[in-house]
Amino acid sequence: MDFTINTERLSKRLSELAEIGKIGETGVCRLALSKEYKEGMELVRTWMEEAGLSTRFDHFGNLIGRLEGKNPDAPAVMLGSHIDSQPYGGRYDGTIGVLGGLEAVQTMIENDIVPESPVEVISFCDEEGHRFGVGLFGSRGILGQLEPGELERADENGVTRREALIEFGADPDKFHESEYNPDNIAYYLEMHIEQGPKLQEQDQPIGIVSGIAGPRWLSVILDGFAGHAGTVPMNMRRDALAGASEIITSFNSIVKTDSDAPSVGTVGNLQVFPNGRSIIPEKVEFTIDLRDTDQARRDDYERKLRDSVKEISEKHGLDYKITDDGGTSPKECSREIMTIMSEESESINLAPPVLMSGAFHDASHMADACDMGMIFVRCKDGISHNPAEYSTDEDIAAGTELLYKAMLRLVKN
Amino acid sequence: MDFTINTERLSKRLSELAEIGKIGETGVCRLALSKEYKEGMELVRTWMEEAGLSTRFDHFGNLIGRLEGKNPDAPAVMLGSHIDSQPYGGRYDGTIGVLGGLEAVQTMIENDIVPESPVEVISFCDEEGHRFGVGLFGSRGILGQLEPGELERADENGVTRREALIEFGADPDKFHESEYNPDNIAYYLEMHIEQGPKLQEQDQPIGIVSGIAGPRWLSVILDGFAGHAGTVPMNMRRDALAGASEIITSFNSIVKTDSDAPSVGTVGNLQVFPNGRSIIPEKVEFTIDLRDTDQARRDDYERKLRDSVKEISEKHGLDYKITDDGGTSPKECSREIMTIMSEESESINLAPPVLMSGAFHDASHMADACDMGMIFVRCKDGISHNPAEYSTDEDIAAGTELLYKAMLRLVKN
Repeated sequence: MDFTINTERLSKRLSELAEIGKIGETGVCRLALSKEYKEGMELVRTWMEEAGLSTRFDHFGNLIGRLEGKNPDAPAVMLGSHIDSQPYGGRYDGTIGVLGGLEAVQTMIENDIVPESPVEVISFCDEEGHRFGVGLFGSRGILGQLEPGELERADENGVTRREALIEFGADPDKFHESEYNPDNIAYYLEMHIEQGPKLQEQDQPIGIVSGIAGPRWLSVILDGFAGHAGTVPMNMRRDALAGASEIITSFNSIVKTDSDAPSVGTVGNLQVFPNGRSIIPEKVEFTIDLRDTDQARRDDYERKLRDSVKEISEKHGLDYKITDDGGTSPKECSREIMTIMSEESESINLAPPVLMSGAFHDASHMADACDMGMIFVRCKDGISHNPAEYSTDEDIAAGTELLYKAMLRLVKN
Repeated sequence: MDFTINTERLSKRLSELAEIGKIGETGVCRLALSKEYKEGMELVRTWMEEAGLSTRFDHFGNLIGRLEGKNPDAPAVMLGSHIDSQPYGGRYDGTIGVLGGLEAVQTMIENDIVPESPVEVISFCDEEGHRFGVGLFGSRGILGQLEPGELERADENGVTRREALIEFGADPDKFHESEYNPDNIAYYLEMHIEQGPKLQEQDQPIGIVSGIAGPRWLSVILDGFAGHAGTVPMNMRRDALAGASEIITSFNSIVKTDSDAPSVGTVGNLQVFPNGRSIIPEKVEFTIDLRDTDQARRDDYERKLRDSVKEISEKHGLDYKITDDGGTSPKECSREIMTIMSEESESINLAPPVLMSGAFHDASHMADACDMGMIFVRCKDGISHNPAEYSTDEDIAAGTELLYKAMLRLVKN
């Protein structure tokens, strides 16, 4: 493929950034607002300035590089992601969106294209949320979506987010100065590794994201009656694990109702009490994680699950309780952006499949403020949040090329 | 009901014995070979002597009271059980078999009935197995069924069984002197609380045991692949818990194939890895406890379970491993004894149901040496190994009356 973007520069920057907070041969530990994070952000800042952007750190710990357009009052086109990582993370998650966005803008500048609207490249603070337990901080911050008490959350060393922000050079008392009026943002584009196996399965380097699934979290508690595994006849048992097993099997069937839909459902955590080999399980607790891009379908599946818990519990003589652990609504990607991405893909001889994002991204919140679009890049075996996370330079370049082409359409040069 | 046995004496002895090692209002902690155990055994010995039996402690820590018959060379009729308890145990488990057996023999003596065969009442050492991790010690001991290394097993304070036996007054180097030649035992009778809920359910004070179920123990390990709960589509998952749930559901169906059969199956212990709410389970391990009185049926169910594990694992793309954790073969109660018990029940206006024992008893091993029979006494809600264990004096008296009548038939007076 002939690339307009500078693939060599992009690969080199990705490698150089991966040296900061490097763990082992391939991993990265660059927790939000840490020393390594600051070092990484400063490096990205020098690249932004090298490209010709005017840069600033805001009070949320975000780094923003801006290129003015012909019309300084037009709402901006933003390209972004994050460079903070999980504690035992990889080098691609987030970083390809920041450096790919920068590469797209730098290529535009080098090609003497002057956009109508201003363009911003943003490296959001604390997308991962590991250090203080709640993520997507920077993207929620600029939209005024922070929750009370977030500044008082402490990391494992007792350092609060407020303290970490001040240490980083931000001023939490001036958050309002860093908030955006949604009217000033026209589009948000984010390129990210898929973190799933679909593109690899379909042998495609990149994909166009249709939406970000909204998760629904529940916990189910089943109460039966313990008893000796040898002495209580089958028809007199109130076996909580026998009930839980049937519910989980039923839940899997419900989620698979429409095999073309992107719905996913997971029971990831399950505990048995007393958990003894010769004791009939008295109590079982398990979690439900249900995600879909279609809110109505997700609601329907949740209703069916609840019916199933009721019916199966009654059959097994179990008491049940379903607790609501929250969730968020699905977010749709802009149809306009998806169409542009699809058209531009043809020009570079790609036919990226359309797929949903099961994981959150900064784009989830940006979708509340503007039209949002995402490009996914294939990653090996769907692995992420792990040093084994891997995408080829070529696939990242393909995604960046599409990001560049889509951006050109949106900035209306 | 008019009892031949002395119900008042029996109840009084049960209460008196329950004072030794008493915990709370109703519980007992009388671990094998402990100070409380010795005190309890000494008390039972005085009652045996009061009844007219000649008594001895053997080298396994068993207490034996013997009444000679008209024919000193005839094989003995033995009645027994145990008086050691679980650490947080009840007052009826085992004790009613020892004191009920003594009551039966004492009643015979007081009624001037001289048996043809000798009669022995035996209080077996360490049926429960809590202290050294392996039980049924005394009954296996007298039949030469101990395993290598048993004397070196230590309790939680580091005291070995050998040391505990010597402290008790036994001599492990003289075990052979305490072993029985099976030719010298004609019958073994044991009365025990049911430890299950069937008799309560059927509103019957006592039951006649048909056999002791043989347990089959297996562990199943399923290996799938972890992944993000949001990003891996349902049709690409290798979810170990989804597979385990289907296997457990299938196992429950297999065990319930014949609703008239006493087969029971339990998955009591299950572990999920990594057990995170948003992570597809990579690995699940669970135990299988399968019991039946019919060895062929149990084998058939085990085969069907293995087929099920294979088929469901393949369907979910899981690797599986089934480990063999042992088990024992079912033991049948003597049809002769069951018939006698049934006939004698009529004479006391009872129609005890026939039921199997899902739990082990000293009778399990005695069945290897002679004809064995058991009487079950109703216990509240099937609870045992717990201070809440409870049987009424009346039900215990009914069981003891039947034990007495059955014994009279077997000693051929």
